[in-house]
Amino acid sequence: MAVELRTMVLGHFLVISLALNAGLLYRNYCSGEHKSQNIFSFKNECKNSSSASTMAFLETKFQPSRSALSEVIDLDHGDPTMYERYWQQIGDRATVVIPGWKFISYFSDVRSLCWFLEPEFANAVVRMHKLVGNAVTDGRYIVVGTGSTQLFQAVLYAVSPTNASEPVSVVSAAPFYSSYPQITDFLRSGLYKWAGDAREFKSDVPYIELVTSPNNPDGLSRAAVVNQDRGVLVHDLAYYWPQYTSISSPPEDHDIMLFTVSKSTGHAGTRLGWALVKDEETARKMTDFIVLSTIGVSKESQLRAAKILQVISDSHEQRGGFDAGEAFFEHNYHLMAKRWKQLRAAVEKSKLFSLPEFPHGKCEFSGRTFASQPAFAWLKCEGETEDCEGFLRGHKVLTRSGKHFGESTKHVRISMLPRDEVFDQFTERLASITSSSST
Amino acid sequence: MAVELRTMVLGHFLVISLALNAGLLYRNYCSGEHKSQNIFSFKNECKNSSSASTMAFLETKFQPSRSALSEVIDLDHGDPTMYERYWQQIGDRATVVIPGWKFISYFSDVRSLCWFLEPEFANAVVRMHKLVGNAVTDGRYIVVGTGSTQLFQAVLYAVSPTNASEPVSVVSAAPFYSSYPQITDFLRSGLYKWAGDAREFKSDVPYIELVTSPNNPDGLSRAAVVNQDRGVLVHDLAYYWPQYTSISSPPEDHDIMLFTVSKSTGHAGTRLGWALVKDEETARKMTDFIVLSTIGVSKESQLRAAKILQVISDSHEQRGGFDAGEAFFEHNYHLMAKRWKQLRAAVEKSKLFSLPEFPHGKCEFSGRTFASQPAFAWLKCEGETEDCEGFLRGHKVLTRSGKHFGESTKHVRISMLPRDEVFDQFTERLASITSSSST
Repeated sequence: MAVELRTMVLGHFLVISLALNAGLLYRNYCSGEHKSQNIFSFKNECKNSSSASTMAFLETKFQPSRSALSEVIDLDHGDPTMYERYWQQIGDRATVVIPGWKFISYFSDVRSLCWFLEPEFANAVVRMHKLVGNAVTDGRYIVVGTGSTQLFQAVLYAVSPTNASEPVSVVSAAPFYSSYPQITDFLRSGLYKWAGDAREFKSDVPYIELVTSPNNPDGLSRAAVVNQDRGVLVHDLAYYWPQYTSISSPPEDHDIMLFTVSKSTGHAGTRLGWALVKDEETARKMTDFIVLSTIGVSKESQLRAAKILQVISDSHEQRGGFDAGEAFFEHNYHLMAKRWKQLRAAVEKSKLFSLPEFPHGKCEFSGRTFASQPAFAWLKCEGETEDCEGFLRGHKVLTRSGKHFGESTKHVRISMLPRDEVFDQFTERLASITSSSST
Repeated sequence: MAVELRTMVLGHFLVISLALNAGLLYRNYCSGEHKSQNIFSFKNECKNSSSASTMAFLETKFQPSRSALSEVIDLDHGDPTMYERYWQQIGDRATVVIPGWKFISYFSDVRSLCWFLEPEFANAVVRMHKLVGNAVTDGRYIVVGTGSTQLFQAVLYAVSPTNASEPVSVVSAAPFYSSYPQITDFLRSGLYKWAGDAREFKSDVPYIELVTSPNNPDGLSRAAVVNQDRGVLVHDLAYYWPQYTSISSPPEDHDIMLFTVSKSTGHAGTRLGWALVKDEETARKMTDFIVLSTIGVSKESQLRAAKILQVISDSHEQRGGFDAGEAFFEHNYHLMAKRWKQLRAAVEKSKLFSLPEFPHGKCEFSGRTFASQPAFAWLKCEGETEDCEGFLRGHKVLTRSGKHFGESTKHVRISMLPRDEVFDQFTERLASITSSSST
């Protein structure tokens, strides 16, 4: 029995080691500015070799069984598996049934500007925003997309000047969402190009500024920084929900606001986002982009997201047999609060790291006053450690380096949304790191 | 009562007329090379004004009630609503049930190259191809996409040279699928550009050739035409299914083969396609494209498409309680045969048009020998009529002009896949057009 256990443990170590070797060999080959260990980043310099994202993925996602003595904990990407438990508890109340004859046609509502938008989904979105009070929907066009990732690209297409001799500059204040540069530039579009940190943007040319609030990666509330006349603002409000941050009054009222199911309900696999757009012409062009890109958006995803959003609204209005404890945002507010308390305790114990402090705000939705508890932790390695990502990787915790967000390597972004057991393992391991020398 | 009826009819005429006025005014404003009346085309010259696609859509999709004496029949785009009746008859056997806790994670199978590909869908695809014998799957990577539209773009990204000073040329033999130029060029990518008719491509530079077989719009079988060393071939086999054309032996065995649920099962609203790819690096880069574009593909759509494909396979293997008459490809083969017979009779009666003739082929799948019966009819206006699309529009039949396919305006493409009542109306009207003067 002892021999079998030892053999099994050695076998696990060997596999982890081989995977890490493969990744490290690859990384040596593909070293460069955008070296990244995450699935969603693109390595320009490595386009000819095996995909960076897949290699990184093989390294990070392999999670051997619990008998391995030192598992790799992957908190690099925001896979929101934390939400699974809530939806399992909700059970049949969130089930959808789709007959075989549905969704044959390309068209959803031919009278709507966004003709592939399922009316059920649009209604659920409006109801949700009215419940939470986080964004104005009256007089807005709703454009549905295959995630806010697609909508972000649709906005760039829609608002970039048409007859310009140069691509329009796309900026965002650092630390900005690490995918913005890659998504903006991966097709080398003649319409738009990434121009870096909005705070350093001084040119007197047209620009598009992305304002993410709460911000990804650091969770802080944000406003536009460029403040020139020639800019178009795009507000990415993916995290502006009451489990993460207080909802203030009045509701957000910007020209272009993006949301995603991935971070509001947790259904990242559904690939669904929506935009609230003031200007009709902008909404039309965004619709055009999505037509050319994917001839619309999965109607199954829209139907399911509609159901999920309605269940959330019902859970707060205690319709359809929901107990008070099942109110979605309440449940997940408490979950995020617990996790942030746990993380801060671990950081306190370790003494090698620091976290942002967030101001308290009164939440108009819940009536509660609290400090933000974002979906990502923007952790800083204090002291002499310069490469925080490398340091944590040495402790088999995978994070995303601050350099991908336009900041220093002393910062890393860590997902707060894995399953409970992974998060508990993480805080336990973090608390146990008491020396800044590499392992 | 007569007054009420007259008022209602006049009301309908007025609305049609106003819609057509709006569209014609817009079209005058936006006249140009790529002027199009269809939802999926992009008017470069009109990017600053109201979306061409939406305006065209308002013109074409408005279908007043049957009491209007002269309805607009829209056969411009291939909305496959013909398939609804079959799926209604199949009933509960094709129903899917999705619990609320599914598809939270971004990830489907972390060991797979295409990590957002649902294994159920991959299995259903392989089973289907083995049943029909239309394409080799052994040793192929399956890449799933949000329609073959997204996969087409993924291929362009994956195979375009990385460090070239010029975008690679993308060609296809005319008449080519009207969306190819628009989708290739709408972002003005620095990686690839549309270079027109493959038969006129003489340069000694790298190129990508799109081979659609059976072809859209004319239904003919196709092979590559450029035949130089520096090209990559992409085979779009969207219509290579036995309801449309005979399946020959051996199965197609190209490096890159694209398929779509829209034209095989009829579920265009599901937005799902798949690619069978020989080269691992190509498959990885296609996967990368889809990650950057939409971080994967709707898992609901994949689950549903898996079910639909399995039901089709079951219907042919008489599993799960299917009668012989319910075998999907048999049922739809007969439907297409009936429609083509009906169309040819109408063309014969009218004497103003002609259709392609298709060679007979032995179908290895059904054992039957038959001539192709494609999803689109490539109709030609004979005699003096030069603008076939305009001529038919005058008879309130909306089609897509041959000029969008790189051919003359004497041709139009007409969808063979609308609902029965629309198709019957169309052939009746076509047969009644006996004079080449405009109405």
